[in-house]
Amino acid sequence: MGCSTSDSAVIADVFISAELRGIPSHGMIRLKDYYDLWKAGRINVKPDIRVVHETPSTAVVNGDNAVGMVPAFRSMQIAIEKARQAGTGWVATYNSNHYGIAGFYSKMALEHDMIGICLTNANPLVAPTFSVSRLLGTNPIAVAIPAGKQPAFIADFATTPIARGKLAVAEKKGEKVRTGYVQDKEGNPSNDPGILKHGGSMVTLGGDYEHGSHKGYCLSAIVDIFSAVLSGANFGPFVPPSVAYLPVLNEKTGEGTGHFFGAMRIDAFQPAASFKAKMDQWIETFRKAQPAPGKTAVLIPGDLERQKEIELKKNGIPLIPQVISDLEAIAAALNIPFIH
Amino acid sequence: MGCSTSDSAVIADVFISAELRGIPSHGMIRLKDYYDLWKAGRINVKPDIRVVHETPSTAVVNGDNAVGMVPAFRSMQIAIEKARQAGTGWVATYNSNHYGIAGFYSKMALEHDMIGICLTNANPLVAPTFSVSRLLGTNPIAVAIPAGKQPAFIADFATTPIARGKLAVAEKKGEKVRTGYVQDKEGNPSNDPGILKHGGSMVTLGGDYEHGSHKGYCLSAIVDIFSAVLSGANFGPFVPPSVAYLPVLNEKTGEGTGHFFGAMRIDAFQPAASFKAKMDQWIETFRKAQPAPGKTAVLIPGDLERQKEIELKKNGIPLIPQVISDLEAIAAALNIPFIH
Repeated sequence: MGCSTSDSAVIADVFISAELRGIPSHGMIRLKDYYDLWKAGRINVKPDIRVVHETPSTAVVNGDNAVGMVPAFRSMQIAIEKARQAGTGWVATYNSNHYGIAGFYSKMALEHDMIGICLTNANPLVAPTFSVSRLLGTNPIAVAIPAGKQPAFIADFATTPIARGKLAVAEKKGEKVRTGYVQDKEGNPSNDPGILKHGGSMVTLGGDYEHGSHKGYCLSAIVDIFSAVLSGANFGPFVPPSVAYLPVLNEKTGEGTGHFFGAMRIDAFQPAASFKAKMDQWIETFRKAQPAPGKTAVLIPGDLERQKEIELKKNGIPLIPQVISDLEAIAAALNIPFIH
Repeated sequence: MGCSTSDSAVIADVFISAELRGIPSHGMIRLKDYYDLWKAGRINVKPDIRVVHETPSTAVVNGDNAVGMVPAFRSMQIAIEKARQAGTGWVATYNSNHYGIAGFYSKMALEHDMIGICLTNANPLVAPTFSVSRLLGTNPIAVAIPAGKQPAFIADFATTPIARGKLAVAEKKGEKVRTGYVQDKEGNPSNDPGILKHGGSMVTLGGDYEHGSHKGYCLSAIVDIFSAVLSGANFGPFVPPSVAYLPVLNEKTGEGTGHFFGAMRIDAFQPAASFKAKMDQWIETFRKAQPAPGKTAVLIPGDLERQKEIELKKNGIPLIPQVISDLEAIAAALNIPFIH
């Protein structure tokens, strides 16, 4: 498509990381979306990504409408550089696009003995509490915290009860979903995973007001405001579509999609060794918790993804036939030899 | 009790703010708890609160076992001072105690055109997903974001479906609670608000795994780690009781209760005026959302508390007879004239 070799390597790394960590909804299946956006002239493969404003601990980055992984990777590097100097670094990025899994960027901080944080806004599919209007994305929160002998604490989750991708899977299988994930266009609870195509919406974490959906709404709103209002990107309902088959929106409140990155040097607070020893103690305390009946153990955030990564590195990444044929078609169109 | 005049003023401010904002569970009802802790020699009314480590954008504060409001107020002041210099300021505080409402401290940032963030860990009452062990507190997240003509965005919420205080109210009234708030000691869903006295536990935001309780667990864990592991306080199950009728724990993993404070200067990212104008646009967009049937409008975080504050400033703060008699008894014991 014309991306530089180094940009392509970053994009490939994020795709493969999503697959290995068991999040195929953000993996190779997305390549066609980027390709189609590029063919439609809606994404820039020769970006000039630059810092447009900064202080000792902050920066604002213009992503120049690049494939999202490229400004995201660069922004997290800047957050880490800022943290090295000022103790912490915080970067708000605008004029970007869908960047894959948030957890990839928060994890970048770990090897520097830093805590990594990554937020992004996303296409509006989610209604705030008491509403049927789709004003928010599934706006994820990713936080990676180093440990010592234990594996790092790696949380990466959408601020909705389930991820958008799980609805798509249920829809493809012709299955209904549990109550508490989506509502129809009138705001009634629905079990139809395809309801988003008929004016329905996802609900925020908590499900309904009585169970704290307003807290999920707060979280999603905070992610949106940090990602878009601090950066100068489009907020909430104005986030541009991350797929070419949806039209460009008429109205905008900023440039592109927005992200927010944070890096905190552990030794800006505690000596790294003693912090990590205490994190090991934290993790071991939680591993020793009494399981509920029918459960074997309490999980530490990141456990499942790490187990999946071990399994797939050994056995290979399974791709569904549709993804393989999409990749084959793209390879043919771009005159790239396709490896079967 | 021997607190300095200025410390007493801070403590009173936080109590009154909790009452005015409609959170009486963190208001005057708590004075007796502090008084009893002091009588038991478990709290220090002549603290020497000091920064023990710092970088341009961070500090660690030793709260010297003070009434929690005092180190919390000072820590947020330090975060604001750091932000003035470095763009952002982040303070982890250990050796502290229960500090009232988190939202009080995040709000302190607003008048400086900063975003304020405040987290704290709390007494262990909450079980992580798949467990029956009480390893986490209701660990709140408070974020205050300035706006222009619109009132500020003020979120302040526990990372459980409902606050602990609502269980206590239901229990006093002899009412059952909805499913999805608490579980019994075997991990079965319960409707008994008094189940915590019988080995039961609260669940995390999301309710059950199928509805994302592991995301609530992640949030609560992040609040705990930022508040305690970064600061040097006790984490999770080792947080000291905030009431004198519960014994001091035998085991500790740090000193006292931990908090985490953040301040981000708006103009470290965007000119304050344009940020605030865009926040107004964000808020107005959400106010104009289509309400669900039976609902009148989408609320902006902070709306209900602001309305309550207007009402109570006009009509006065209602206190329940038990609180009045507690205050009267404390006044008598301390030879303070009691105003009826």
